Amino acid sequence: MLKEWVKQSKPDDETLTARLEQARGELGKRQMMVKECKLPVLVILDGWGAAGKGSVLGRVIKNMDPRFFKCETLSDKTSEETRRPFLYRYFVRIPKEGQFSFFDGSWMGEVTTDRLMDKISAKEYKDHLTSIKRFERQLTDNGYLVVKLFFHIDSKIQKKRINDLESDPVTSWRVSDFDKWQNKHYKKCLDVYDDYIEATNQFVAPWYFIDSSNRKWAELQMTEIMIASIDTALKNSEAKKNAPILQNTFALKKIPLLKDIPLDKTVDEADYQKELDELQDKLKHLHNELYHKKIPVIIAYEGWDAAGKGGNIKRIAAALDPRGYEVHPIASPEPAEKARHYLWRFWRRLPKDGHIAIFDRTWYGRVMVERLEGFCSENDWQRAYNEINEFEKELTDWGAVVIKFWVQIDKDTQLARFTDRQNTPEKQWKITDEDWRNREKWDLYEDAVNEMLAKTNTDFAPWHVLESNDKKYARIKALKTVIKAIEKKLASL
Amino acid sequence: MLKEWVKQSKPDDETLTARLEQARGELGKRQMMVKECKLPVLVILDGWGAAGKGSVLGRVIKNMDPRFFKCETLSDKTSEETRRPFLYRYFVRIPKEGQFSFFDGSWMGEVTTDRLMDKISAKEYKDHLTSIKRFERQLTDNGYLVVKLFFHIDSKIQKKRINDLESDPVTSWRVSDFDKWQNKHYKKCLDVYDDYIEATNQFVAPWYFIDSSNRKWAELQMTEIMIASIDTALKNSEAKKNAPILQNTFALKKIPLLKDIPLDKTVDEADYQKELDELQDKLKHLHNELYHKKIPVIIAYEGWDAAGKGGNIKRIAAALDPRGYEVHPIASPEPAEKARHYLWRFWRRLPKDGHIAIFDRTWYGRVMVERLEGFCSENDWQRAYNEINEFEKELTDWGAVVIKFWVQIDKDTQLARFTDRQNTPEKQWKITDEDWRNREKWDLYEDAVNEMLAKTNTDFAPWHVLESNDKKYARIKALKTVIKAIEKKLASL
Repeated sequence: MLKEWVKQSKPDDETLTARLEQARGELGKRQMMVKECKLPVLVILDGWGAAGKGSVLGRVIKNMDPRFFKCETLSDKTSEETRRPFLYRYFVRIPKEGQFSFFDGSWMGEVTTDRLMDKISAKEYKDHLTSIKRFERQLTDNGYLVVKLFFHIDSKIQKKRINDLESDPVTSWRVSDFDKWQNKHYKKCLDVYDDYIEATNQFVAPWYFIDSSNRKWAELQMTEIMIASIDTALKNSEAKKNAPILQNTFALKKIPLLKDIPLDKTVDEADYQKELDELQDKLKHLHNELYHKKIPVIIAYEGWDAAGKGGNIKRIAAALDPRGYEVHPIASPEPAEKARHYLWRFWRRLPKDGHIAIFDRTWYGRVMVERLEGFCSENDWQRAYNEINEFEKELTDWGAVVIKFWVQIDKDTQLARFTDRQNTPEKQWKITDEDWRNREKWDLYEDAVNEMLAKTNTDFAPWHVLESNDKKYARIKALKTVIKAIEKKLASL
Repeated sequence: MLKEWVKQSKPDDETLTARLEQARGELGKRQMMVKECKLPVLVILDGWGAAGKGSVLGRVIKNMDPRFFKCETLSDKTSEETRRPFLYRYFVRIPKEGQFSFFDGSWMGEVTTDRLMDKISAKEYKDHLTSIKRFERQLTDNGYLVVKLFFHIDSKIQKKRINDLESDPVTSWRVSDFDKWQNKHYKKCLDVYDDYIEATNQFVAPWYFIDSSNRKWAELQMTEIMIASIDTALKNSEAKKNAPILQNTFALKKIPLLKDIPLDKTVDEADYQKELDELQDKLKHLHNELYHKKIPVIIAYEGWDAAGKGGNIKRIAAALDPRGYEVHPIASPEPAEKARHYLWRFWRRLPKDGHIAIFDRTWYGRVMVERLEGFCSENDWQRAYNEINEFEKELTDWGAVVIKFWVQIDKDTQLARFTDRQNTPEKQWKITDEDWRNREKWDLYEDAVNEMLAKTNTDFAPWHVLESNDKKYARIKALKTVIKAIEKKLASL
């Protein structure tokens, strides 16, 4: 695509100046509309070294209100970032609604440079392309505008610019070794960029090429593309767009309905204490091994109110070195969280490699409470099954062990525990009016849970039901499940 | 993708039989829902020779009501088809709403075989991939369900099946030379298929692999995939889905607003006749050359009522050999047309190469009358600008010359012509109540036309405004424009 690209011819200076003046004004207006319509806008700037991305961006933002945009320079990864999934550093920086984020350099630069430097295999490269396409599509499906710009110059202009910059001590620091390497291997780079662009040129997030041989002309192109893209995105958001529900392509394992799960399983008190000790001891050792092999583990808890999640988590956590795990209780989202993609708050809480993150309630809120309480649209939760499968695929591809628990009790057991909480002064804080209200919707929740289990029981991140009428049985089973999953992972290395 | 695919393990015979029985019943139910919800379903079956596509399809349709599906075997092209754009034979066979079409073999087979046989260049192959992605996305955006199945067997099984088929005279005809070639070059084919599948694995139309080592198991997989895909599509259609409006990526040329076009251009009566004769003579010769060089030409007329389209078309047609052109008057769509993608009726009317098709009103009805009279949804016409640009790109990539005329008059001239028609008995058939009603909406139409011109004035298929207050001036300009476009094309060969 890039190779066959036919440039628009640059207008004469007078026309250029006139169009630029008009476009700047138009962009100012769009900024207000973006704010009003709560559109989140992500603009990524990629392209050749010395193509002038930075200085064109500098020109464009001069005409914008600095309260409503952020510029991020995404060059080298911090050590915190290298210990997270590939897309982490980008996902955590997505703008909130009504705001612009400009990324000077993006996942494109990272992946193509790694490919050029043979830091990733052909297979890894392809997997990254899949991840990237999913990421960009998830953003646009969730109402984001994603504008992808590639600043293009030919090898001669690049060479001249590099020489000019280097010859002046004031600007010589702006030339990187990679820029020089790139110029020397221009043809090879072009092949890789062209391939990348072709593979990631999605209908919902297409690539734009900017002829960057002249700064003013490049500014005009960037500004006009932004205006047109914003106008399109505003049309989509006005229409309260329903993004398409996608055909499922993840292999799903059959899972029984909640009503068909026998809940009479128990554990003997004497056996319990012994088994608990042994299992916790085993997990403790495994945690150590995980740490050394840099395997991240994510344990997700969902279940009925009063099912015993808290006590269960406590028994897992008790086995772990406190420096190597974190428990994340998930309540309703904060305003800054609500203003972004709903998975953002979970991306931000991902563990470092070698660490364990335990989520007390999870991203599955989207298809349970948010669905049933109308906190998101029907289209939103219907799309979410696939989005969540994609998210968990990202985690397991990164190398994580993902363990998902549904803590199951029957309705009578819940009533008994609620009543006990109500009648026991030191437990009263654990029961609220909301718990009683949720209980009234038991059947609706049960349907939603069954649908959730069926649609997200993938082979890479399967569900495990913990029969928790006997909480002790559930704790032993949870420990065994975690141990088994970790052992399986370690054996696969 | 295909290479790294991990098969599901085949269930034991008893489970397989039970699941198959259930799935067949479920598919029967889905068929009724598809009919009721007016969902059009296109299922394409690709895969290895001797993988058993045909016989699995035979099994699946046994459980369906034959009134509601069609099977198409897409093997060799007819000569009519080779003289049309690449996607023609597929587009004209898309199902209507509520119906299934099964394609035994698809554009995948065509493109990959051409690639394997070096019948198309790497560049043509890439262009076809782009066309295919647009085609599939246009179908799903317009409410179609597209299910893409690849029937997979390894080279050993393929070899055995080919041998078995060949050794029996009753079945030996079913083995083609290509099947044998494919088996001999299994690895090379696998590379090409894998590449194709990767490139065309769109979120809205993903690929499914079917382990085809066992027929019954393959039938179960196909049936279950169809059921799940239909359920997803029904969810989308229930939601009266708004497909995303896409960011425009076609280079557009600036075009003036209608109100800024001077309409005082005239031609002298004496000059007119002379010029007309000369130009028609020239066009006649060019038509001959087009015919020999197999260049298709598509001339599209849009314009105000009474602007003089009919007389203009007559002057073009008069210059042409009647065996080599056709005029298509476009009225409101027939039921069979309304039940399909709105461009279907234009695809069906495309000329053979070397021929000229003149459209008296066109596909632009979508963004004018259908928009203003509410015959399609807002999302439909907003999407249409891009869909039409894609359609015309397909035509010009095929090699066609596409010439689009907007025949422009002012409001007073229209009134004068309407009045004249009303008052002249032999012209009265030309004026209807609808013309008067449309006239009342002049301003709305003018806005729509301006938007249409601005958004579809591509460099590959630009608009030409014919100033037609003086009809003769407009005819001369039309002839000159057609001649110039054809000469430019011939010069480029």
